[in-house]
Amino acid sequence: MDERELIRRIGGIIGPEHVADDCAVLRQGDHLLVVSTDMLHEKTDFPAGMTDRQAGWMAAAVTLSDIAAMGAKPVALLLAAGLDRAERLEEIIRGADECCRRSGAALVGGDVDAHEELTLVSTGIGTARPSDCVRRSGADPGDLVCITGTPGRAQAGLLGYALHRKALFEPQPMVREGQLLALAGATSMMDVSDGIALSLFDMLGVNDCGFAVESNKIPLPEEVEAGTALECALYGGGDFGLLFTIPPERYPVSGVACTAIGIVVSEHSVLLDGSEMERRGYQHRWE
Amino acid sequence: MDERELIRRIGGIIGPEHVADDCAVLRQGDHLLVVSTDMLHEKTDFPAGMTDRQAGWMAAAVTLSDIAAMGAKPVALLLAAGLDRAERLEEIIRGADECCRRSGAALVGGDVDAHEELTLVSTGIGTARPSDCVRRSGADPGDLVCITGTPGRAQAGLLGYALHRKALFEPQPMVREGQLLALAGATSMMDVSDGIALSLFDMLGVNDCGFAVESNKIPLPEEVEAGTALECALYGGGDFGLLFTIPPERYPVSGVACTAIGIVVSEHSVLLDGSEMERRGYQHRWE
Repeated sequence: MDERELIRRIGGIIGPEHVADDCAVLRQGDHLLVVSTDMLHEKTDFPAGMTDRQAGWMAAAVTLSDIAAMGAKPVALLLAAGLDRAERLEEIIRGADECCRRSGAALVGGDVDAHEELTLVSTGIGTARPSDCVRRSGADPGDLVCITGTPGRAQAGLLGYALHRKALFEPQPMVREGQLLALAGATSMMDVSDGIALSLFDMLGVNDCGFAVESNKIPLPEEVEAGTALECALYGGGDFGLLFTIPPERYPVSGVACTAIGIVVSEHSVLLDGSEMERRGYQHRWE
Repeated sequence: MDERELIRRIGGIIGPEHVADDCAVLRQGDHLLVVSTDMLHEKTDFPAGMTDRQAGWMAAAVTLSDIAAMGAKPVALLLAAGLDRAERLEEIIRGADECCRRSGAALVGGDVDAHEELTLVSTGIGTARPSDCVRRSGADPGDLVCITGTPGRAQAGLLGYALHRKALFEPQPMVREGQLLALAGATSMMDVSDGIALSLFDMLGVNDCGFAVESNKIPLPEEVEAGTALECALYGGGDFGLLFTIPPERYPVSGVACTAIGIVVSEHSVLLDGSEMERRGYQHRWE
């Protein structure tokens, strides 16, 4: 069973609306709260050579990225740490705290636990006005399909390309960009942490329309052979770019480095250069 | 190093005010949000014989109990699950969902991850009016020291007393009681998940006054030998009762089953029958 099948089953219990977006959305007075939680652990999520400070940074970044993908403003983060050695915690907290401050959020609490394998779970809370909250659903045929930054850099870093090591070890949540895109009128949005392909299929699952992407429009990691670079961008994990749709008349968006890589189509499928895109990318699996 | 020393060090980085209470407190318009996260894992937190549904229930209960201890109303819960076997998740989610509904909260999302050891992290969000939010600090000399329910039952269950097995396996967060106590004017409060003793020392750390408890006033688990029962109540883990202080003229509190077990004193120490109480109880430790 893979992660997405499992999440679909959970939706059957707690309601499919609760598994449709990067964050859960709660109404609180005239604002929305968006909340998200992410579990990372050493063996599968922290690449060899990563410092504890970078692990803390990354734990905060994955969650802040989910908040960014809703167009929301991050407010606070909690960090639960399962520690094999207690002395690791201080650097982990410093890294998480640094990432929060950089995003305008505060690290306000957490929990500690003794664990055989380092396990970090961050939970973030953000706020948005109802009119500024962007979901994975909402794409309209004719909208452009766009991506911020250069996808695939984290995966290239994982493959050993030293130039992209920093993208892997210190991913930047697109917090400012997410809010600017929401204000600019993005119609749907999510972060691409499991690759462009899986993200497009996630968006396909909650939209009636489809997405047609052209490979030659995708900006690719520098100094990586073209085939490998495209593979990293489409099917690699670890990126924190934002994938979004926006009406053409609202593109480009001032202050956001992004590229139009395709178009929203009425046909309910994900196309790459006119053919069905492969549905693969990073997923946790159980045998 | 033990858990509390570690938490003290974290306070040095993120600010001591962020480690002082059961929940972090955030101002949101004219209300407060209270948020808390708790990590549980199979080897140390789920007793042998516990079903997956009960593990899910417990993961929700620990966090809802923290929200209850602030006098707040739980609103939403997120559950991150690190799973050794994917098929465990459905029952875990059902248990957590059941506990949330019983407390008036909704299970709104989460994360799944493949993990060698079952690891559950729940994060809860509650709301309170600023006037109704009760902290661990705020106790005044002359206040009564009180506890809800019968402390020590979960520990007695762990020791094998079948009568108390349910208290161990399906702990009830005191959500209604917490809100009633806040409205009734409790001056300080926390939940006693690591035993009465450690909880009193935690409260000592954030109050200028102290606490004098009389052992013969503590209600003890039935059908357990008296010495063992007192040991369970003072130093055992797994209970979800609320420990609170309240001015004598406001006690008892209608609708809350609780017992006055002592008094708040000006002397800054924790006393049991007039002598310094031992500072021990359930704590995660690292060698």
